[in-house]
Amino acid sequence: MDRLEKQLAFALEIDKIKNVYRQTHLSNNGRNENDAEHSWHMALMAYLLKEYSNEKVDISRVILMCLVHDIVEIDAGDTYVYDTENLKTQKEREERAKERIFSILPEDQKEDFISLFDEFEAYQTPESKFAHAMDNLQPLMLNDSNNGLDWKLHDIKAEQVYVRQSKTALGSQKLFNKTDEILKNNIKKGNLK
Amino acid sequence: MDRLEKQLAFALEIDKIKNVYRQTHLSNNGRNENDAEHSWHMALMAYLLKEYSNEKVDISRVILMCLVHDIVEIDAGDTYVYDTENLKTQKEREERAKERIFSILPEDQKEDFISLFDEFEAYQTPESKFAHAMDNLQPLMLNDSNNGLDWKLHDIKAEQVYVRQSKTALGSQKLFNKTDEILKNNIKKGNLK
Repeated sequence: MDRLEKQLAFALEIDKIKNVYRQTHLSNNGRNENDAEHSWHMALMAYLLKEYSNEKVDISRVILMCLVHDIVEIDAGDTYVYDTENLKTQKEREERAKERIFSILPEDQKEDFISLFDEFEAYQTPESKFAHAMDNLQPLMLNDSNNGLDWKLHDIKAEQVYVRQSKTALGSQKLFNKTDEILKNNIKKGNLK
Repeated sequence: MDRLEKQLAFALEIDKIKNVYRQTHLSNNGRNENDAEHSWHMALMAYLLKEYSNEKVDISRVILMCLVHDIVEIDAGDTYVYDTENLKTQKEREERAKERIFSILPEDQKEDFISLFDEFEAYQTPESKFAHAMDNLQPLMLNDSNNGLDWKLHDIKAEQVYVRQSKTALGSQKLFNKTDEILKNNIKKGNLK
């Protein structure tokens, strides 16, 4: 295959992400959200909220990480953040998926896409931390709009939510403060125990 | 509302784009695609195929245009590119939608998002032309993978498809050449009359 054919084969392969469904429900008590929608929403929210990053970030790189970070779930599936059993095997499943899916690309682009994915996963750079803040805030916002539907369905407790959401402060203290306000409000309303 | 509240109200409002369905079907004869998925796919394809732009482009701005260009369809609905009746009112419907939806944002961001949308619509800058090439190529790729399903469903003729797809050459001659090859192949297979 020539270079363009490889690129188009990859572009077609990642269409499958639209059939990977998450636990999060769309606003107005909608259906479950899929990874493509989630990634689009995160990317736009990153651009919208960039002024709240703790550190100066290359927002273009944040956006790319948002767009790319869930592609491995085409093979590995979505692992619910409160599913302790599946979390044990998540890393291994995603590494295998990463190798298969990004190998469809020409070599230089395989390396580029993997570097975006690995940087996101490593959670070390300011860009990764801010992208993760979006990965936390986006479903929180939808869940809040649905009166805690997803927490209720899975019997999730406030302390579990805080373990995840408190990491938002690594990317944005200001957005974590807002998160804390949203969570306290949901606890008060009985949406979260 | 304070600034952050306005931004989060906008972030929640645009969730509705996930319920705006297009005529295009997902690969493997899947369901209809929605605008959020389409926008995510276009943005990633722009990054993937940036080397084929006729002119040097600010790829970050192309990606932002891809992410933002369909938000007006929350109010205006998706207008099928071959629906001559609805095309007559499209501009007016989308202008009204633009004003309502982007007015949820703080003033500076309203201007910024509208400038992205208007630049895309105007089809003048290299960035807009390349974003439009993605808006053409992405559904073509899916339709090709489904043996022309969408053309068959709507009885679309090759000459109609060429009117639209030939504009891809404004953004990328190389990608138009590939488009032409794909179309000729579909005509030969009888997928397109």
